[in-house]
Amino acid sequence: MILINGLHDDKLAISDRGLQYGDGLFETIPYRFGKLEFLEAHIARLIDGCRRLNIKFSQAEALRNELNQVSQSLGDNDGIIKIIITRGSGGRGYLANQGVEPTRIISTHPSPIYPAQHSQTGVKIRLCTHTLSENSTLAGIKHLNRLDQIIARNEWVDTDIAEGLMLDQANCVIEGTMSNVFMVKSGKIVTPLLDKSGVAGIMRGQIILLANKLNISITETKIHLDDFVAADEIFISNSVIGIWPVTEIENKTYLIGPITQKIQHALQQVTK
Amino acid sequence: MILINGLHDDKLAISDRGLQYGDGLFETIPYRFGKLEFLEAHIARLIDGCRRLNIKFSQAEALRNELNQVSQSLGDNDGIIKIIITRGSGGRGYLANQGVEPTRIISTHPSPIYPAQHSQTGVKIRLCTHTLSENSTLAGIKHLNRLDQIIARNEWVDTDIAEGLMLDQANCVIEGTMSNVFMVKSGKIVTPLLDKSGVAGIMRGQIILLANKLNISITETKIHLDDFVAADEIFISNSVIGIWPVTEIENKTYLIGPITQKIQHALQQVTK
Repeated sequence: MILINGLHDDKLAISDRGLQYGDGLFETIPYRFGKLEFLEAHIARLIDGCRRLNIKFSQAEALRNELNQVSQSLGDNDGIIKIIITRGSGGRGYLANQGVEPTRIISTHPSPIYPAQHSQTGVKIRLCTHTLSENSTLAGIKHLNRLDQIIARNEWVDTDIAEGLMLDQANCVIEGTMSNVFMVKSGKIVTPLLDKSGVAGIMRGQIILLANKLNISITETKIHLDDFVAADEIFISNSVIGIWPVTEIENKTYLIGPITQKIQHALQQVTK
Repeated sequence: MILINGLHDDKLAISDRGLQYGDGLFETIPYRFGKLEFLEAHIARLIDGCRRLNIKFSQAEALRNELNQVSQSLGDNDGIIKIIITRGSGGRGYLANQGVEPTRIISTHPSPIYPAQHSQTGVKIRLCTHTLSENSTLAGIKHLNRLDQIIARNEWVDTDIAEGLMLDQANCVIEGTMSNVFMVKSGKIVTPLLDKSGVAGIMRGQIILLANKLNISITETKIHLDDFVAADEIFISNSVIGIWPVTEIENKTYLIGPITQKIQHALQQVTK
C-alpha cells in the first residue's frame, strides 16, 4: 500500500522537490509482532531532520493516522514501512516557495530476506573505496541525498559480503553503507562520532541506551581505521537487521565476543 | 510539456531511485532563438555524469529526439528545458538491480524573470554560512543531491541579493548557489578549481574557451575568500543568466571592469 498525503497513489508529481533535488528525509521502520518498532524514536528523528532542513512539517498527526492505516493493511504479516517527507512541490530553483506544503509518502514493503544466521554466526564486511562527504549541517539526519551510499554499495556484488565500511576523508571509520558500526576494546564499546558525516541510526540510539542500562561503557568518538580493525569485537546495526556481529573485515577475523552477545540479548528482550 | 521515457506524463513512480535517493543527474538548458544553447556540451556533461555514477545510460538518441519534440512545443517562445536522468526504479536499498533501466524526464519551463539590468549594471551577492560538502567522486557533476545548495539558498529572502557565495570547509570560494564564480586580478581571470566540490557549469566551460580565444589568461585554482574579495573584478555565470558582473559582496563594492565586459561581449557574439 502507498499513501501520498493520505491518498492511495503510487506516482508523484515530477515537480516535487524530493525528486528535483533530494530535498527531503526518510525513515525505514520494521513492522513486527503487530507494531512499528521504536516508532517514537523514528518520528522524533524525522521531526528533528525537518527542523534542521527548515521543512515546515506540521502533519505529524496525519502521519500517525496514515501509519496506522498502512500497518493494518499488513494484517498479521511482518513488513517494512518507509516514510518519505519532502519539502513539497515548486519554487524557482533552490529557493522553495514560502507557502510550500510538505509531501508525505508512506509505503509498505516486504521484509528483506537476509540470511537468518547473520545475527548468530556473524558477517563478513569489506572496506569501501568511496569516502563520505563531510558537512556538519547534514550530519546525523536521514536525508534523501544518498549518492555517497549508492556509490559505495555499488562497489561490490559478492553476496558473501554483507556490508561495506565507509571512511571519512581523514581515514576515520564512520558507518556502513546501510548500518552503524561499533567496536569493543577491553570491554568498552566505542562508536564513531557523527558530527561531520553519517546517519545517527535509530538502532544505534537504542544500543547506546541498552549499554547504559547494562552498565557497559559506550562512547562516541573519532575512530581511525587502524584502531577500528584492532578491536576485540565488532558489530553493526540498523533498524531492520538489528545487530550483526562482524567476523571478518578484509581477511582479518574476529570472534563474536561477550559484549556483542550481551547487547544482542538485551535488544531481543525489548523488541520481542 | 513533460515527457517521461518519451511519453506524455507529469507523474513518476515513487519507486524511482531519483526520488528515493537522489540517484541521478540533471541539466538545465535555455531554448533561445529557436535552439537549445550549448546542447552538445550539456549532453556531454550528462553522459560523463552517468559514467561517473555508473548509470547505464544508452538512450542518448531517444533523448535527442525527445528534446526536439519538446523544443518544437515551445514554438517561437523562449524557455528552459530541464532534463533529469535517474538510475531508474527498484533495487533493494542502495544496491540497484543489475538490469535497471534509466528514467528520462524532459520538461519545459518558462524563462525565469531575472531583472534585465543584472547583466549590465551588475548584482549584489552575499556570503553563505552553509559550506559545501567535499567529495572528489561527486565534484563537478550536476547530480540530484542538492541539499547543500538548498540550505544555502534558503539563508536569505531579500530580493536585492542576487546570489550567495559558497565556501568549502577550508574557507576557499567554490561557487554560488546556482552559478560559477570568477575573479579578475591584474588582468588575469581565476576561477575556483572544482576537484572536491562544486558543479562544473556549462557556461563556465564556455567562458574558459572564450578567454582562451581572446588571449586572456584564465586559470583554475584554489582561491581563499580573502583573495577573492580582494579581486579587481568579479563575475558569476550559469547557462540561464549568462554572465552577471558582481558590484557588491557584503558591503565591499566592485566596478564592472574591462575583462568582464570583454568576456560578456564575446559571449553575446556566440549566443545571438
